[in-house]
Order: sequence, then structure tokens, then C-alpha cells
Amino acid sequence: MLKLAIQRSELEKKISVAAQAVGSKTVDPILQCLLFKVEDNSLNIYSTDMQTFVVSKLNVPEVEGSGQFAVDAKLLEEIVKNVDNDQIILNYDNGKLNIKSGKSSFNIATYSEPEKFPSIELENTGIKFEIETSILQEMIDRVIFCASTESAMRALNGVYWELKDNYLRLVASDGYRLALVEQKITVNSDIDFILSLKSMKELENLIKETDEPVLTINFDHKKLAVNAGDVTVIMRVVEEVFPDYKRVLPKAFKSRIVFNKDQFLESLKRTMIIAKRGTDKVQLKALDDTLELSSQSPEYGEVIEEIPIEKEGEDITINFNPRFLNEAVKKIEEEEVVFNFVDELSPMQINSKNVGEYLYIVLPVRA
Amino acid sequence: MLKLAIQRSELEKKISVAAQAVGSKTVDPILQCLLFKVEDNSLNIYSTDMQTFVVSKLNVPEVEGSGQFAVDAKLLEEIVKNVDNDQIILNYDNGKLNIKSGKSSFNIATYSEPEKFPSIELENTGIKFEIETSILQEMIDRVIFCASTESAMRALNGVYWELKDNYLRLVASDGYRLALVEQKITVNSDIDFILSLKSMKELENLIKETDEPVLTINFDHKKLAVNAGDVTVIMRVVEEVFPDYKRVLPKAFKSRIVFNKDQFLESLKRTMIIAKRGTDKVQLKALDDTLELSSQSPEYGEVIEEIPIEKEGEDITINFNPRFLNEAVKKIEEEEVVFNFVDELSPMQINSKNVGEYLYIVLPVRA
Repeated sequence: MLKLAIQRSELEKKISVAAQAVGSKTVDPILQCLLFKVEDNSLNIYSTDMQTFVVSKLNVPEVEGSGQFAVDAKLLEEIVKNVDNDQIILNYDNGKLNIKSGKSSFNIATYSEPEKFPSIELENTGIKFEIETSILQEMIDRVIFCASTESAMRALNGVYWELKDNYLRLVASDGYRLALVEQKITVNSDIDFILSLKSMKELENLIKETDEPVLTINFDHKKLAVNAGDVTVIMRVVEEVFPDYKRVLPKAFKSRIVFNKDQFLESLKRTMIIAKRGTDKVQLKALDDTLELSSQSPEYGEVIEEIPIEKEGEDITINFNPRFLNEAVKKIEEEEVVFNFVDELSPMQINSKNVGEYLYIVLPVRA
Repeated sequence: MLKLAIQRSELEKKISVAAQAVGSKTVDPILQCLLFKVEDNSLNIYSTDMQTFVVSKLNVPEVEGSGQFAVDAKLLEEIVKNVDNDQIILNYDNGKLNIKSGKSSFNIATYSEPEKFPSIELENTGIKFEIETSILQEMIDRVIFCASTESAMRALNGVYWELKDNYLRLVASDGYRLALVEQKITVNSDIDFILSLKSMKELENLIKETDEPVLTINFDHKKLAVNAGDVTVIMRVVEEVFPDYKRVLPKAFKSRIVFNKDQFLESLKRTMIIAKRGTDKVQLKALDDTLELSSQSPEYGEVIEEIPIEKEGEDITINFNPRFLNEAVKKIEEEEVVFNFVDELSPMQINSKNVGEYLYIVLPVRA
């Protein structure tokens, strides 16, 4: 028998982080569950898809009894979101969970063997560092969209973390483009690892829900544990080697153009109207003080756009997948964007005018 | 050669109504087009899917040349929405359409035989009436969601219009529920017809885009023409007989409950959490001053909700598809909703407390 009186908003917040780690179509039904467990006088909620593990300590004003139960995560999440009373009373007895809130009463089946819920431990020999929550959030946001969602190379279906010389660097690439962001931190070892996209999204979710200004991170060479106050997310790293991204970074440029971000994005949006009905290519032609953007569709026709630029170096004509330009340029926070060209077949570098801690590399396509 | 200088917002508005009538996956590519045609010193835009025809007169400050051209509707709509200059210049010459606006220039292919664009005429012998635009909008909104989208009975895949004794009545039903709304108007004949769901949606779209306070409607027994200033939509009626809806309307009730709309909808939402994982049924139990809502799922469990009611007549226990209750009760504008019961197997009537010009009938399901 276990009876808990919990604040609705507190439970909703914790479930929201925990439910993210639940397997969506797993073979094992226990991985669809949240485990509620009373231990050391506090209540913890566990969830896992066997790659990511989430543990949340819950503030429970009233606990009667002891023990544990496992209940379908999505169902509980939906109930907790929709009841209209501030307090929720969970009453577990004999395999059944009763959930009461206001005039609502749910009697819910639970998993028959909660003691089989998988657990994980971090080894004690690891590396430890801290990072501001808002900074890590921004770093992830700047790179995650470049990770592949379907590459045959598993290393690309995630984000590469490199800690070196007191810098944290995140790199993501799908083989056609690459995003890189770096930030000074304090760490006593040089290490690197890959986190899967799913782990990265769980991390984003943790950051979104937490009020903690600083995250504490532990790495034991197999797993990364990110702690935000009473919630800890433990992620297995992807056992793959990330390609040597430094080889892709251009060393010298033939020309460089600077332009207004919004003007470019507006013009690009219009070229995409034709591009998506045709070859899915946009041609950039940098001539003196003008950038011409154009696209063709054999069936529908063509479009030509012009925006003013400042140019250094030679004229250039080069073709790109317009979606890659759109997604990268959108992430530049400053008003002015810089394109750095090597030649029409080599990767182009995109950065803000005040070359910051982040940049994008995009491979051209053939004309 | 035909050259037109048009205000962007005016063109966007007219295209938005016209493009709705374009066939989505038609065999004939000309039905994917908008026809632009200069006639009697004005420019008209035509579109059709052979069931609905739209004609819009366009305010064009500058016209040079004459003639007509047909251009892909979706492509033009997207271009006109996205250019950033107030003025758009259309320049048609030798089968090619150039669209210029600001620094954007599109060269677009047109349909090779614009003279083959289908046209339709209304017969002169028809019935004519007027209705306030906002009133018709509300009437359509109150019934359209009850129309079937997939009935084998074609008559149900639309909305029934009945003009009788100076009333306009709209009725929609999918065989499991029925919506009825009526409004006093002035009309000199008793007529009835069915408009397809697609025609009804085109009509909704016309109403949304027009500023005209009153619509003029003409009916020639085969087609309905709705005129809103410079836009006319002509719709072929569905050549089917609508079932006799009056036979479904209950005549006498055994009991009647009155309750707060939002309380009911909130409780119903929570029973649906279980219902959708189970039998997709909600049981209503009206007992004295309480309505109990409950649902079961063999796999997940059950839920019981309670809301206060005022009841006249006998207690009743009756089962419904919760989605049908949800959609109907949402449309009641007043705070208090009335359910009128005949018995647990007969259709229930839903209306507002001040029985208004609209009501819903929902068939129960078996326990």
C-alpha cells in the first residue's frame, strides 16, 4: 500500500521530463512505464528506453506506506495534464492505482512486476564539469538541426561533444553540412563522445523544464549524466567514431560577402517556390555589390531575385540546396550574415559578421 | 500581349477564394489553373473543379493589351503571398507570364490552350433571396461538422438546404447524429437542395474573405450562385434526395438535464482519455442532482467523473460516442446546455437553455 498526495503542477513537470525517455514502440511493455518508488524517505520517478535513463526526485507533502509501482507513462501524463484540481492523490494497492483529483477518479492497471524495472549506475571514476543551463541550451539549438536523422553512418545520427583545452565544442553533420559551436568551460581532462539525437532531445527537454541555472555533468567514458537539481538524465554514448570535422573546415577563402539576414531569407523563400517544383537547387551569383539568387523548374519556369551585398574578393557562381542555406542562416543571431567561399565546388562557411563561437559549413551541389 | 499592374493584397484576396475551387488531384491540368481574362474593360479571374465555379472581378489600376491566360493556381498563390512589394506586375506574352514585384522576377509557364477553360451559366428562371453574410456564416459553422465525409449515401456527404414558409433551414447528418439550424428570411418559393461538403467549404471561404454584409443567392434548380460583391461562386447541387430529417426529431421527452457547458466538456475530456484506449464509449448516468460520466478500458482501467445538474423527469443511464457529444456541446453558445432524453435507445436532443434556432440530435450506442 502506498498513498501519495502531490501538487499537480509539480507532478506534471516531472512526468514531462520522464515521459520523454519512454520507448515509443518498444518490445518490452515495462519500458512504456514510469516507476514510482519510495526510497530514503523520498519519492523518485524512473523512466528509460535502455539508452537514456531519467531519475526525478519528487516533492511529496504526504506519503503513507511504502513500495513501488509502474504505470503507463503516456496515460498518466495525459491524466495529470487534464485534471482540474491542484492536488492529486495517488493510491496504490494490490496492483491497482487510484488517481483522485477534484471530482475525477481513475482506477488504472499497473505493471505486474515493478521490481523488474531496469536501473543503471554511473561509475565513480569519471570526469566532472559544470555549464550554465542557458548556454548549453543555446549551443544545442545551434547545432542539433544539422545532425542526420537517417544516415547509414550511426556517428552522424547524433551530436559530437569535444572537451579540449578548456573548451566545450559541439559538432553535428549529416555529411552535406556541418554546424560547430564552442564555449569556454573549466574541465580537467580532454575527452570526446557522441550522444544520439534522442539523447540530445531528452537533454533539450530537461533544460526546458528545469529552473536550475547550472547543470552538473559527469562522464564515465560509457555514459553521461546530466544533473539539474532533483532531476538526473543518464545517457549511454554512441559507440562510434565521429569523422574528423577539422578536415572539412576551410582554411583560406577566395571571396566573402556580407548581407542583411532578413533580406536574404525573404529572397531565398521565394526562390524555393520554384526550387521545390524543380531541381531543388538555388544558384547564388555574387557580382560586385549584388547577390543574384535564382532557381529553375523545367515544368513551371524560373525565378530571379536580387539583394545588395558587400563583397571582398572575386565574383563567384555556386549552387546549393536552398533548405540547408535557409536553416543555417536562420540560426545567425546578428542582422548581418557572412558567406565565405573557397570555390564553386568546395564547402562554404557561414558565420555572423562578428565571427562568433559558432559557424556553419555547407557543401555546394553541382550546377 | 497583356500587362496588368495589380495591388498585391487585392490579388491575394481574390486568388485565395479562387484557388479553393481548384481541383486538388484532377485528371485535366487546366482545372489546376486560374484563368485571367480581360472582358468588358475589367479583369476577371475564373477557377473551377467542374462542380464549383468561382468568378472574381479584379480591381486593376493599369491594363495594357487584351486576351487571357491560364496559370497554375497553387504556384501563383504562393508567389503572390510571398513577394514583398505592394504592387505586382503581370506581363503575359507569347505563352509566358512574367511576374515582377520589387526585386523579384518570375517567368512562369502558362497553359497552352486557355480558350478551353470551362465556363458555366446560370439559367434566368431561378429563385432569388438575400441573407446577411454573418448569419449564414454562423449557420454553416453550426451544422457543417455533422456532415459525413465518407458515407456511402452521397446525400449525407453535404449539407441540406430547405427554404420553406420564409425560413432557411440547414441540416447535416452522418447517420449517427444530426445538426439543424434555422433562420427567418424572405423568399417567395419553397425549395430544397443539397450542397456537397466541398461546395460548403468554398462558401465558407468566400464568406471569410468578403467584406460584403449581405449575400445575394440565386437558384436555378440545378445550381446555386452566391454573390458577394465582385466575387460569385456557382455550385452544382448534389442530385440526391436528403433523408426525411423530421422523422428523427424527438417529439416527447422522458427527462431533461441542464448543466454548465465548461464543466461538462472538462469532465468529458478526461473520460475520453480512457474511452479512446478502450471501447470509445462514455456512459452518462443522470441521478437526482448529479451526472456521472464514466468510461472503461479492459487494458488500462476506468474513470468516473461527476458534475452537478438540474434534472426534470426520470433518472437515465445512456451511452454515447464521446466525440459526438464533445463536438455538439462545444457549439452551444450559452453557458448552460440541455440534454433531452426519450429513453436509453432513442436519439437525444441537445440544445441551449433558451431553446434557440439550432439543435443537435445524437444517437446513443449500446452499453
